Amino acid sequence: MRSLMLIVVPDGDDALRADVQAAAPDAAVSTFSEIGETGRLADVEVVFGGMPWPLADTPSLRWVQLLGAGIDGSLSDEMRTSGVVVTNARIHAAPIAEHLFGMVLMLTRRLDVALRHQQAGRWEREELSATADVLSGRCLGVLGLGSIGAHMARIGAAMEMSVVGLTRHGRPHPAAERMFTPDTRIEFFRASDVVMNVLPLTPETRGFVGADELAAMPARGIYANAGRGATTDTDALVDALVSGRLAGACLDVTDPEPLPEGHPLWTAPNALITPHYAGGHLAYMQNAAATFLRNLRCYVAGEPLENVVDKAAGY
Amino acid sequence: MRSLMLIVVPDGDDALRADVQAAAPDAAVSTFSEIGETGRLADVEVVFGGMPWPLADTPSLRWVQLLGAGIDGSLSDEMRTSGVVVTNARIHAAPIAEHLFGMVLMLTRRLDVALRHQQAGRWEREELSATADVLSGRCLGVLGLGSIGAHMARIGAAMEMSVVGLTRHGRPHPAAERMFTPDTRIEFFRASDVVMNVLPLTPETRGFVGADELAAMPARGIYANAGRGATTDTDALVDALVSGRLAGACLDVTDPEPLPEGHPLWTAPNALITPHYAGGHLAYMQNAAATFLRNLRCYVAGEPLENVVDKAAGY
Repeated sequence: MRSLMLIVVPDGDDALRADVQAAAPDAAVSTFSEIGETGRLADVEVVFGGMPWPLADTPSLRWVQLLGAGIDGSLSDEMRTSGVVVTNARIHAAPIAEHLFGMVLMLTRRLDVALRHQQAGRWEREELSATADVLSGRCLGVLGLGSIGAHMARIGAAMEMSVVGLTRHGRPHPAAERMFTPDTRIEFFRASDVVMNVLPLTPETRGFVGADELAAMPARGIYANAGRGATTDTDALVDALVSGRLAGACLDVTDPEPLPEGHPLWTAPNALITPHYAGGHLAYMQNAAATFLRNLRCYVAGEPLENVVDKAAGY
Repeated sequence: MRSLMLIVVPDGDDALRADVQAAAPDAAVSTFSEIGETGRLADVEVVFGGMPWPLADTPSLRWVQLLGAGIDGSLSDEMRTSGVVVTNARIHAAPIAEHLFGMVLMLTRRLDVALRHQQAGRWEREELSATADVLSGRCLGVLGLGSIGAHMARIGAAMEMSVVGLTRHGRPHPAAERMFTPDTRIEFFRASDVVMNVLPLTPETRGFVGADELAAMPARGIYANAGRGATTDTDALVDALVSGRLAGACLDVTDPEPLPEGHPLWTAPNALITPHYAGGHLAYMQNAAATFLRNLRCYVAGEPLENVVDKAAGY
């Protein structure tokens, strides 16, 4: 069993602190604010919850467990090229998949319109009944078919949708009938009645979805994004909504973010926008802590960690 | 091949009329309004779309194909006890299941709140991120596990929910881990974090869900109904919402219906109400007509019809 110097955990969670101490009995455990007060940065070996300090101030740092999934914005360039191991929390599949399906169904079933009628206390059946739509029989395209996308694919299949996917390598995936690569992206968009984008943000994915991609989608197409806003050309998306080429957009992420007051995306036709919380859920910290504690036991035992990020690939 | 007298079809659909004539070449085909004008009621043998006349005026009537699924409100008492065959349209599984999941996800993911923020152009992440919930890991109870309920069960399972069901007979169902009967309904509600009610309205199901059933549901329970409003005690439901015992209700059907202006259900906490259109979809008439045409070919050939309603059971 390895001897640890100092583990840093988030403030205000005594139960977590006790669990961490139990998993690494001979380590010191501090919170972020205590480290700021005591100045023991040089001894920090493990951090749970992010890396707020310059790497040069933490010469003992070996491992950072992130709270989130995406590493863009969480890691400095020096961290990316260092030998420090970075792990992320992969607890987002269920909330993000449920969130995006909720948004898409809100559009197809016209629940946003029904909600406005409810707020006015009005029972208006005919128009909604004639214009609501079904996903059954249509094609779901999962853009970035990893663990989150695979969960979306399984829900889509249960809704009787056909499913296609796009990944960097395009290897066959059990949840998709057909796979595409960045080179065949236009065919992917042409096949997909509903696109769900869960791409990470990397140099390759920045601006991946532009005017040509959106224009390739079938009539009544819906574009949904819960990955990163900057993988999509916002101006092209607004144009596609305003012109009616797209039947709707369901966006949990935007570019810029937060979306400023008065931005045209707020009021684009059939755009639903939620403020980047698709991965959030009541038990989030509990689930993230469980990931960290499993990894900490491995770390202490000198075993491989789970959810190790490929810092070069960017996810 | 049997010789038919007169088939009545809905007004305004020439393509349907031509298809019906092709399926029954020697029959006369009229629309509802033409019958009213020409008075050939005595010759009517088959009706597609309901039964607006007294049975005594249609001595030749043999078969009525309904447009909808539920027969309450569609059939007179004399029709129920007559020898006239009644078939319904069973094209509601996908739209109703998608509709109810859309409503439930709107509540759990707090999309109704996010929509109000969007309407105000405000990006407010923290509270929504901390209070949104997931269905994964919770239990879906399908009240009335027929073909619509089975589709819900499959979607729930894909969302990593456990699934239980309740039917009159309680026989094992491949989509449910455990089945209940009316006698064990309290245990059914106790097991179900989310209840989806798709019961037909019969003497046995009227008022089936009352104060005791709702009180048995676990904390954060959600009650959804897309069957018939009168299977639920509305006053008990309003009480459960106002007191906070229920975390929410998703209602496509209500009692009374339409829900009158000023009714307390409109504004009950965490109640989402849509005006009885969960089964509606863009291709509804096309799909209902396809059911009728398949049945008409069987009828002409003297073969058994599909979707024959058990008029005594009421569904």
